[in-house]
Amino acid sequence: MRPVTLILGGAASGKSAFSESLIESEIGGHWTGALYLATATAGDAEMADKIKRHRDRRGPAWTTVEEPLALADALAEHTQPQRPILVDCLTLWLSNLMFADRDIASETSRLIATFPGLTSPVLFVSNEVGGGIVPENALARRFRDEAGRLNQKIAAAADRVYLITAGLPLTLKDSTV
Amino acid sequence: MRPVTLILGGAASGKSAFSESLIESEIGGHWTGALYLATATAGDAEMADKIKRHRDRRGPAWTTVEEPLALADALAEHTQPQRPILVDCLTLWLSNLMFADRDIASETSRLIATFPGLTSPVLFVSNEVGGGIVPENALARRFRDEAGRLNQKIAAAADRVYLITAGLPLTLKDSTV
Amino acid sequence: MRPVTLILGGAASGKSAFSESLIESEIGGHWTGALYLATATAGDAEMADKIKRHRDRRGPAWTTVEEPLALADALAEHTQPQRPILVDCLTLWLSNLMFADRDIASETSRLIATFPGLTSPVLFVSNEVGGGIVPENALARRFRDEAGRLNQKIAAAADRVYLITAGLPLTLKDSTV
Repeated sequence: MRPVTLILGGAASGKSAFSESLIESEIGGHWTGALYLATATAGDAEMADKIKRHRDRRGPAWTTVEEPLALADALAEHTQPQRPILVDCLTLWLSNLMFADRDIASETSRLIATFPGLTSPVLFVSNEVGGGIVPENALARRFRDEAGRLNQKIAAAADRVYLITAGLPLTLKDSTV
Repeated sequence: MRPVTLILGGAASGKSAFSESLIESEIGGHWTGALYLATATAGDAEMADKIKRHRDRRGPAWTTVEEPLALADALAEHTQPQRPILVDCLTLWLSNLMFADRDIASETSRLIATFPGLTSPVLFVSNEVGGGIVPENALARRFRDEAGRLNQKIAAAADRVYLITAGLPLTLKDSTV
Repeated sequence: MRPVTLILGGAASGKSAFSESLIESEIGGHWTGALYLATATAGDAEMADKIKRHRDRRGPAWTTVEEPLALADALAEHTQPQRPILVDCLTLWLSNLMFADRDIASETSRLIATFPGLTSPVLFVSNEVGGGIVPENALARRFRDEAGRLNQKIAAAADRVYLITAGLPLTLKDSTV
């Protein structure tokens, strides 16, 4: 098992850019490219624009694969030594699972069960969504509770967890040192 | 005065589970049970379900007392050596006070005035609710301002303060070391 | 260039009080007053009340200047040795810029371009607004993305960055030590 890292932060906190720079600084010259595993689908103009901005920033060393639902299968298929994988992001994956009426707890367990077999470093980006006022909308309340539980489970299984604020990291956990 | 601890975090961030494991790890075999002082009342199905899940997790060493409003009195009544108290949570207490049209500042002062007389370790769980966009609803804006002020006052009076994210703590203050 | 400090935190997290006490503890007896550069205008009763509370707390050593938009010009005009400046806050400045339909990226660049010429310590207060559920309102979504990007840019250019929770600081960056 290669290190599994969870990158947490609010909206527009710089999670993706931090993740990319972490990969580039740690892997240095020894890698053979990196895989960007996107859970987003360009369903509307806002999202299409964000996907394009992120893609332009990453540059040509990155290959992009889109997988909105079958994340465990995609990780098992694409993991290979010397090629880090950035999963961006778990919050959209959760949203996709809820929309498709999947069982969140069992999908989360399947995802975590892939960790011991991973041969590449994997970084998961996920949003903090529980820091505001209780939403009036019942679906939004359910979503933020599920997102919180998902983040807790991935954090417990991960080797490293960072919290990003304004592009700057706080280390919540690091069992690699 | 025994240590007073404040556990802060967003919704579904793992505050309660962290608090329970902190009590169990610190007190070890030397305690005679713990008291769960709940400010929630099972007023709707969502809350009843959450209360049940938390109760199932805590197990038989815990006694539960419900007190939605008179928190200072309940602490004074129930404090005893060797029995830690977990107050879960201050945010619902504040909500109950506002609904009952009580004076928040004086109720907060009364609560803090109990701290020097406490003979048991007491942990307060409270929500971070100020991390989102300004709510459109005036009552929600007032609530998050009052919640922020309450957290500041309890934090200033507490011996230890932790911020929980995805189940993992950051130490904001520790005057016990 | 004197140290530039960014103070981040949610609503009612104690950012302003922390900033004022930081200025007072660091400058000690060596200053000749401090400047409070307010981006708020007392446009409604809630804001007028908040401005009054903050002003009462600061006391007579502070001079207040209001500047809702031309922050770079105001900093250049008012900077002088031995007089710290507290800019409160960047989030309202952003809101004012958006309302006035200014170009956010170029206004941000102009602000950061003043940093090397500053002769006084400057502290910027800014809100974390990205920690909640995705807002349903498109303008609110745009605002929180712009606020996140603004905080990232100021944080990258600042010498020190603190995250305040319940009045207590976590150090995100400190290149002055």
